[in-house]
Amino acid sequence: MTDFELHPRLAADTAFVADWTLCRVLLMNDARYPWLILVPRRAAAAEIFDLGPEDREMLIAEIALASERLKHVSRSAKINVGALGNLVPQLHIHIVARNPGDAAWPGPVWGVGAPQPYAAGAIETLVREIVKTF
Amino acid sequence: MTDFELHPRLAADTAFVADWTLCRVLLMNDARYPWLILVPRRAAAAEIFDLGPEDREMLIAEIALASERLKHVSRSAKINVGALGNLVPQLHIHIVARNPGDAAWPGPVWGVGAPQPYAAGAIETLVREIVKTF
Repeated sequence: MTDFELHPRLAADTAFVADWTLCRVLLMNDARYPWLILVPRRAAAAEIFDLGPEDREMLIAEIALASERLKHVSRSAKINVGALGNLVPQLHIHIVARNPGDAAWPGPVWGVGAPQPYAAGAIETLVREIVKTF
Repeated sequence: MTDFELHPRLAADTAFVADWTLCRVLLMNDARYPWLILVPRRAAAAEIFDLGPEDREMLIAEIALASERLKHVSRSAKINVGALGNLVPQLHIHIVARNPGDAAWPGPVWGVGAPQPYAAGAIETLVREIVKTF
């Protein structure tokens, strides 16, 4: 766990939700979609295969948990999961709740339009609601 | 494994590479990017959390293996992994080899431009090359 530091771009774009066994759980400050980001607390991991076998198993368990809870809390039609990292090299996994008619449907959310920050207080309310479901 | 049938859209867009323990491995017929698709051979799975714990562990192992081999064989800068399913409900995971300057860089590949089918014979050659690395 030592030497892990959250990439400044991820820190700037998100609110802290929780530290799970492997991942830091973040909420994207974009009210267009309920959108979590999981960041394995491992320095220098850029690809999923950079993680060891035990970390990989924890990662998929945490992806499944975050996806199921986010779908439940947001009452969404579909979860999109993505590990891209073309701009931010630190390994991070997007968990995005999607619905027909949302700002990017049926395409992916990345790179589409501009983020719409939550109103003051709204992100803290949503974080509390998400944390309650964990 | 019974009752699994590959979604016709995935069948139409890809070439068969291999059947691994959990997933059918496919190669997208789009010469713009070396692009594998993993389809867990489980009927009715739409989200990663629809898989049981053992299947999830096999899935992440197969994602890591496919990503590492595809990065190696394509000598690419980055692997993008995505499970979207907004259009094709059958659970499937994209493993896409990316490079600065490619047709969608640094954005995601999904929904960008039109697929560029491989020339006759080229997809079979690439499938053989990939299979050799497995």
